[in-house]
Amino acid sequence: MKTLDISIKPGDTADFSNRTTFCVGTGRMGLALQKEYQEQLKYVQEKCGFRFIRGHGLFSDDMAIYQPYMDENGIEHEAYCFTYLDRVFDSYLALGIRPFLELGFMPSGLASGSQTLFYWKANTTPPKDENKWVNLVKATLMHLKERYGDNEVSSWPCEIWNEPNLPGFWENADKPAYLRLYEITAKAVKDVLPRMRIGGPAICGGNGSQEWVRDFLAFCHDHDLPVDFVTRHAYMGLTPSHKGRYLYHEMREILDIMDEMNETRHIIDSFESYRDMPMYITEFSTSYHPFCPIHDTMLNAAVTAGLLSRLGEVAEGYSYWTFGDVFEECGVPSRPFHGGFGMIANQLIPKPTLWVFHFFANLKGQCVYKGANLLVMRHEDGSFEGIAWNPPVQGKTDELTVSVRLPVSGKYCALSSTVDEKNGNPLPLWLKMGEPADLSDAQLSYLREAAHPRCEAYEVDSASEGVHIELTLGIYAVTHFTVSPVIRTRDFGYAPEMYI
Amino acid sequence: MKTLDISIKPGDTADFSNRTTFCVGTGRMGLALQKEYQEQLKYVQEKCGFRFIRGHGLFSDDMAIYQPYMDENGIEHEAYCFTYLDRVFDSYLALGIRPFLELGFMPSGLASGSQTLFYWKANTTPPKDENKWVNLVKATLMHLKERYGDNEVSSWPCEIWNEPNLPGFWENADKPAYLRLYEITAKAVKDVLPRMRIGGPAICGGNGSQEWVRDFLAFCHDHDLPVDFVTRHAYMGLTPSHKGRYLYHEMREILDIMDEMNETRHIIDSFESYRDMPMYITEFSTSYHPFCPIHDTMLNAAVTAGLLSRLGEVAEGYSYWTFGDVFEECGVPSRPFHGGFGMIANQLIPKPTLWVFHFFANLKGQCVYKGANLLVMRHEDGSFEGIAWNPPVQGKTDELTVSVRLPVSGKYCALSSTVDEKNGNPLPLWLKMGEPADLSDAQLSYLREAAHPRCEAYEVDSASEGVHIELTLGIYAVTHFTVSPVIRTRDFGYAPEMYI
Amino acid sequence: MKTLDISIKPGDTADFSNRTTFCVGTGRMGLALQKEYQEQLKYVQEKCGFRFIRGHGLFSDDMAIYQPYMDENGIEHEAYCFTYLDRVFDSYLALGIRPFLELGFMPSGLASGSQTLFYWKANTTPPKDENKWVNLVKATLMHLKERYGDNEVSSWPCEIWNEPNLPGFWENADKPAYLRLYEITAKAVKDVLPRMRIGGPAICGGNGSQEWVRDFLAFCHDHDLPVDFVTRHAYMGLTPSHKGRYLYHEMREILDIMDEMNETRHIIDSFESYRDMPMYITEFSTSYHPFCPIHDTMLNAAVTAGLLSRLGEVAEGYSYWTFGDVFEECGVPSRPFHGGFGMIANQLIPKPTLWVFHFFANLKGQCVYKGANLLVMRHEDGSFEGIAWNPPVQGKTDELTVSVRLPVSGKYCALSSTVDEKNGNPLPLWLKMGEPADLSDAQLSYLREAAHPRCEAYEVDSASEGVHIELTLGIYAVTHFTVSPVIRTRDFGYAPEMYI
Amino acid sequence: MKTLDISIKPGDTADFSNRTTFCVGTGRMGLALQKEYQEQLKYVQEKCGFRFIRGHGLFSDDMAIYQPYMDENGIEHEAYCFTYLDRVFDSYLALGIRPFLELGFMPSGLASGSQTLFYWKANTTPPKDENKWVNLVKATLMHLKERYGDNEVSSWPCEIWNEPNLPGFWENADKPAYLRLYEITAKAVKDVLPRMRIGGPAICGGNGSQEWVRDFLAFCHDHDLPVDFVTRHAYMGLTPSHKGRYLYHEMREILDIMDEMNETRHIIDSFESYRDMPMYITEFSTSYHPFCPIHDTMLNAAVTAGLLSRLGEVAEGYSYWTFGDVFEECGVPSRPFHGGFGMIANQLIPKPTLWVFHFFANLKGQCVYKGANLLVMRHEDGSFEGIAWNPPVQGKTDELTVSVRLPVSGKYCALSSTVDEKNGNPLPLWLKMGEPADLSDAQLSYLREAAHPRCEAYEVDSASEGVHIELTLGIYAVTHFTVSPVIRTRDFGYAPEMYI
Repeated sequence: MKTLDISIKPGDTADFSNRTTFCVGTGRMGLALQKEYQEQLKYVQEKCGFRFIRGHGLFSDDMAIYQPYMDENGIEHEAYCFTYLDRVFDSYLALGIRPFLELGFMPSGLASGSQTLFYWKANTTPPKDENKWVNLVKATLMHLKERYGDNEVSSWPCEIWNEPNLPGFWENADKPAYLRLYEITAKAVKDVLPRMRIGGPAICGGNGSQEWVRDFLAFCHDHDLPVDFVTRHAYMGLTPSHKGRYLYHEMREILDIMDEMNETRHIIDSFESYRDMPMYITEFSTSYHPFCPIHDTMLNAAVTAGLLSRLGEVAEGYSYWTFGDVFEECGVPSRPFHGGFGMIANQLIPKPTLWVFHFFANLKGQCVYKGANLLVMRHEDGSFEGIAWNPPVQGKTDELTVSVRLPVSGKYCALSSTVDEKNGNPLPLWLKMGEPADLSDAQLSYLREAAHPRCEAYEVDSASEGVHIELTLGIYAVTHFTVSPVIRTRDFGYAPEMYI
Repeated sequence: MKTLDISIKPGDTADFSNRTTFCVGTGRMGLALQKEYQEQLKYVQEKCGFRFIRGHGLFSDDMAIYQPYMDENGIEHEAYCFTYLDRVFDSYLALGIRPFLELGFMPSGLASGSQTLFYWKANTTPPKDENKWVNLVKATLMHLKERYGDNEVSSWPCEIWNEPNLPGFWENADKPAYLRLYEITAKAVKDVLPRMRIGGPAICGGNGSQEWVRDFLAFCHDHDLPVDFVTRHAYMGLTPSHKGRYLYHEMREILDIMDEMNETRHIIDSFESYRDMPMYITEFSTSYHPFCPIHDTMLNAAVTAGLLSRLGEVAEGYSYWTFGDVFEECGVPSRPFHGGFGMIANQLIPKPTLWVFHFFANLKGQCVYKGANLLVMRHEDGSFEGIAWNPPVQGKTDELTVSVRLPVSGKYCALSSTVDEKNGNPLPLWLKMGEPADLSDAQLSYLREAAHPRCEAYEVDSASEGVHIELTLGIYAVTHFTVSPVIRTRDFGYAPEMYI
Repeated sequence: MKTLDISIKPGDTADFSNRTTFCVGTGRMGLALQKEYQEQLKYVQEKCGFRFIRGHGLFSDDMAIYQPYMDENGIEHEAYCFTYLDRVFDSYLALGIRPFLELGFMPSGLASGSQTLFYWKANTTPPKDENKWVNLVKATLMHLKERYGDNEVSSWPCEIWNEPNLPGFWENADKPAYLRLYEITAKAVKDVLPRMRIGGPAICGGNGSQEWVRDFLAFCHDHDLPVDFVTRHAYMGLTPSHKGRYLYHEMREILDIMDEMNETRHIIDSFESYRDMPMYITEFSTSYHPFCPIHDTMLNAAVTAGLLSRLGEVAEGYSYWTFGDVFEECGVPSRPFHGGFGMIANQLIPKPTLWVFHFFANLKGQCVYKGANLLVMRHEDGSFEGIAWNPPVQGKTDELTVSVRLPVSGKYCALSSTVDEKNGNPLPLWLKMGEPADLSDAQLSYLREAAHPRCEAYEVDSASEGVHIELTLGIYAVTHFTVSPVIRTRDFGYAPEMYI
Repeated sequence: MKTLDISIKPGDTADFSNRTTFCVGTGRMGLALQKEYQEQLKYVQEKCGFRFIRGHGLFSDDMAIYQPYMDENGIEHEAYCFTYLDRVFDSYLALGIRPFLELGFMPSGLASGSQTLFYWKANTTPPKDENKWVNLVKATLMHLKERYGDNEVSSWPCEIWNEPNLPGFWENADKPAYLRLYEITAKAVKDVLPRMRIGGPAICGGNGSQEWVRDFLAFCHDHDLPVDFVTRHAYMGLTPSHKGRYLYHEMREILDIMDEMNETRHIIDSFESYRDMPMYITEFSTSYHPFCPIHDTMLNAAVTAGLLSRLGEVAEGYSYWTFGDVFEECGVPSRPFHGGFGMIANQLIPKPTLWVFHFFANLKGQCVYKGANLLVMRHEDGSFEGIAWNPPVQGKTDELTVSVRLPVSGKYCALSSTVDEKNGNPLPLWLKMGEPADLSDAQLSYLREAAHPRCEAYEVDSASEGVHIELTLGIYAVTHFTVSPVIRTRDFGYAPEMYI
């Protein structure tokens, strides 16, 4: 049993930049046409209210934007179809979420090569004709500007390609080719929407990533290219092993990932002209694989809580990869639980990590304490709220008791919401059911019913020594709590106590 | 700690007639026009799927059916308006529930006196003109027949008036006047819809109720009147005390209420021509008052579980009073929790009793055990389900351990859903919040989130001695469980264990 | 055949203050609890987008706000219940509409007399205790401020009582008593919400109305009372005759009603301190009776179009009485068409007048022409839109041809939407059906299908002489039109002409 | 001006087998995952209520059913994923429509060749391994049986492959290979679901189609294979020309297509053992191309009306290809109108043909007249309904006047709904707008508003000579009418005439 004993003093403050709601990741754009996708996103938006959404495949064939045609003389003309783009972006805006544009991958009709990635065959080669690529980008942005208005579209951030430092995502991980793509694309974007903020290089960790950031910024600087932010990814997974379609790996420590992010931050700041330029972590999660069982677990929830408490120290935004389990990069999952990236499983079963995002997304007030397991916020009206989490420490797990003394006195009520092994955690139930691929209606209802946090209330009546609350967290548990002053306004004659 | 140790043998059966879904009660018909009412009913129907719904006030002024007019010569003509009736009944049928008709109270334009009951001023006097009453009844049924079809409407049971053995509900509790009303009304009903099943006398307990049943049947017999079923009510509340608008009383034992019901049953069977005629308990609950705090509690849930296990022994149908808290008999409630009759509180917060109905409503299979705290059903496919409940015994409360041995072996999975003090029980949370009349969005979300049962799963792997499960029930707890054989169908390569 | 020949010149402007969307009337507050009411309001809001909604009965018994209780010693305490108020106002805000508060009528528990009005028995007597009335007003506003925020609630206008110059609406039409009520209420409002804008005297026409305005303002001035706007009503109906529940009357000319409104305007401006104070016409329509068949007709639509073109000349806001047909002042209607006030009939059948509001509510740009039958607006992008209407002139009706020349040239497309005898006019169809009280599903679908405007498009290709359009309006017809430049962007190979 | 003068006699009957609602076609199964698809289907189902739905691609890669995996030893194992299948079929059943199974095309992992068809790359080669194909079919049906029940799934018809007489749809149009596929598949189906009804050969017209039917039946007969029905297609389009992505052709006469269908019918009946076996026309339309502008026109509506009046003479079912415009066989359409197969355009704009289906789908009663332009039905209650249509006759078009005398007398009301050039016909409006690819909200609302039939009512008051109605149909117009007896039930005092 670990214990944590915290006493908040009046005037205490702590550094906590909460950008939880900035952005969330998604499976490829074309999947946003699906009904199940939209239902999952609606559910997540109701709980978390993300501002932006970012995913791959805007220009991939299933979005059907690039549609050249031959005239009577056999001459090809460029032409575009925005039917699906409009359908997807209309649906985003209707849910109060905006696109964080990622310009890529390559329409096969414009590709210089045949290399593809993923089950859904994303073409990852440079354009065979730079002018046509530039025209595609410009036509798309011009269309968006006409449909949604200059101000609206200019508020969407725009990133060029995804993870070009991996040869699968960008043929040969060819850096000069990427920089050239950035150059022509960035200029095209600013030609159409001068106020749109753009950035790159959207790299994943390792694979020369820090080098890529340095070279990218140097290139932008030397060629006087527009650049408004730097983007990179952050995953916790170490070298994996595979079995079948599944992947397994140990997780890095949060300090380790913070070091990596800080290094990028320092590279940016080392350019005088780019000092304090925003850095966005446009993808982060525990594992980087869509069939890694960790994503469905309480462990994932606890680790994510730690990340959400710290990533704002180094990044102006971060985007969990991904909101839901409508996802096809490594094929279509045949089971409701399969280690998919999402916060919510297919058929609308919330995973524990969704609640962690819900807790962080709705935090208000001024941070008065932040530690490795606890965050406390003070509201202007004299109430407090906070989150406690119990991740493994260097691989070791234990129960954790958190004791918090608050610098107020009087009658208070503490309300807690907890996800842990037994609460808000549908995976173990499904395992015990025998891992059915095909849920009956009753099983589905049961799993949804089970996927709610446990709610508990405590009356706290303090004298001068201050309000004191104590929380016990099981292994990997995450608890949100509020502590609010209570003024009882009992209706005349009401006395339910004899029945309770 | 009480313990219950049960061993089911192959071939065991027990007597359990489950009529949980037969019917449910409602606030007056006019309230069914309201949006909140419809939302509560929809919620309850999704969980319980009741077949009929019964409430008062079909002919009361707010339903605006009886609308005579004066012609140019000052002569009054009978006329009817079915605008609201259609709106209400359309909405019922759209939710898959049908009216259990209760013909009453008196439109003020047809009333012989000015006596009214309730905050909403139900006129409870006989018609001033029998012919006009008969015309009203016939016109209403004729209209329903035209709108919904003869077969449909003929399937709705029909009761004459409500609780005429109370002077507030029927002026002077005038028995001959009631019998006369029954006579003319029953004939009118059968004139229009010969297959419609009708009954009475809809009496509450005490107040000469058994006498009323005997006299009612004797009258029907002597006058050769149509009668298809007998109706009466069953409430558990003893002599009450009042404070403010609230009412408090101790509850009777279930045996006591069963005795009272059986006495009525015997009276019916004492008439040779009426032997085995169905008896419907058209209202039952713990307290008979809409501001009795018991209705919101776990105690109510536990007592109701006991009633649902037994009422089918004596009655062909029973109807919990009421499904929701849109109810005005003693005024409009100013707080979400106020002891209202409903299974669900205003603003769509389920109470514990809703889950008890949900558990009973969805039971399937053959009963193999029924006792004072436990019910077990066997399904054809080799699985079992059951409900255990822990009511007070002669006022004493204790934890209860239920141990059940089932006559099967192999790998099984037990899934339980439990409401108890800490789970599915929003009232104590609201009390600790300070009993706010006006819930903030956050408080409302929290209470709804808290109002779910706790779900737990257990793997059971038995050898030859049979499957054995053990449940621990806190005071007043109610647990539903299923025990199903498990065939694990693990996807190749899937091994989540390292993350759990 | 009348003809109107208009030629718009570059730079033309005309005076048209469009306050169509400012406010709309409603049946009493308590009816807003109903599902059908909410569905009608949703429909109307989607077409018209009104900003405020105003109706009677905020404090009437069915809203159940004033709920004093007796303590153990028999002493009465003031207490309030906001359950229904919150439900109603939550539903308004969810539809994007805000309350235009009307403080009245009297809760029976606070009434000095027993005089009631309407089928629903609104008590129209002064408070028996001024302090308790003031407490009621303050408690209600304080509650609203807490629930919806100071800024939100302060933006809602607030009117004291309704039509006190009629003895039915205010006992004896007692002017001093009204002024006293205004005095104490206005102070109470400003005590709680200093920025809330308040006004009166909410008078109907005739019945000494101009006198009432003068006396009201003199009283406010002399007593230094807060007053932010003046309110009055405007109905077109002349002395009526009755038959059964129905009322019939001829309509005044628009000039006549404008004169009456201007007189009030001049009275206001005659007070130096109130010059330019806003005047709101908080009710207007053709007839002032809820069973006058005109409301369902094209005549109503044509007359209303004329009013909407002119009322902004004299009033800063005006509010059509009422949006829908869920209305009970003279009883519950038994037929879908019965001359109810609403723009939409029960069961969601739009009346012609709804489309007139839809046309006016969505007008954009600068007015370039306004006449007795025509309004033309110019948009910044070079397109035009307008409305033409064909009301009777001094009782005479005729077809009308409207010819408009616009100061632009090139390829244009004119789109028109028309309601007239044969289009968007379900009443005559229902009459021919035999006036069924109870619509079958097929009849209802048919009437809804019929209740849409006719849509026509014309290509206009002009040379230098300007774009010219010509509209032919049947008797009482109302037509909306847009004239927009066309740039054809035909897809390569597309040629549907062979099939058309 | 053509005229048609019909006089119905008492006792007249005519041969009209109305199978309009039997089945409707759809774009490939995978598209049913999309939200827009589901919304279009919901709209169409509300208007038409089809019983079955049939489309291609059940086994294509985007449905992701066939998912073999490699074990540790590199050995491939068969495995299946029903995630998307369940999602699609759940959504169908929720809309009250059932699958008409079409078993095909080939998952690429099971294909013997690389030939693909369509933009979405349907593999159209035989299985590389017959056993694995049989296992795939059996596993899929077994799964459906478990999920939806034996009775439910056994009621779905099942067809093997699509248009194997075209080399694009079945490699080399290899008849022996198809017969072999039928043999193994039919046996597999009956192994799992003995009561499921199966058939083939799903041929299109021309291309040796009659030969194929004969050979197919002979093969089944000779090999004693299960066969429950014969399927073929019927398209009206003659030899086409192309421009860009669009295709144009003249239409055949209905007599011509009836001859072709009858020939197939006779072939079936020529087999003694198959006489009277049902024939299903599993696809029919005007053009067989998804970019042929005819589909959006009134001409299409008029021709379809003629087909719907006749196809039941020869076929036990027929299925219009397709319900909606979510369709990708020749690429994604970039415009709302592009000649897509659907009855409803993208963004939910009904085309005229939808109303024709709506008219036919809801016909009731006994046919009393059927001709080339008119159909009349008699209801049991003494009312009549009918449909009149005005297609081109041998390429010539003219207005048509239809006069019908009905053998009843008294007061009647005729209600008509008409689609014609100016009503329910959004295409011409869109053309005049300039054919915008990207509709503004206002344009979309306008087109939807315009896409409704014109509704007209006539009072008919006949003496002894019978009720007489007269309809005037513009070119290509289609009119539905009902003629019902009227009993006027006017409310006392109601007299709207002075306002009309």
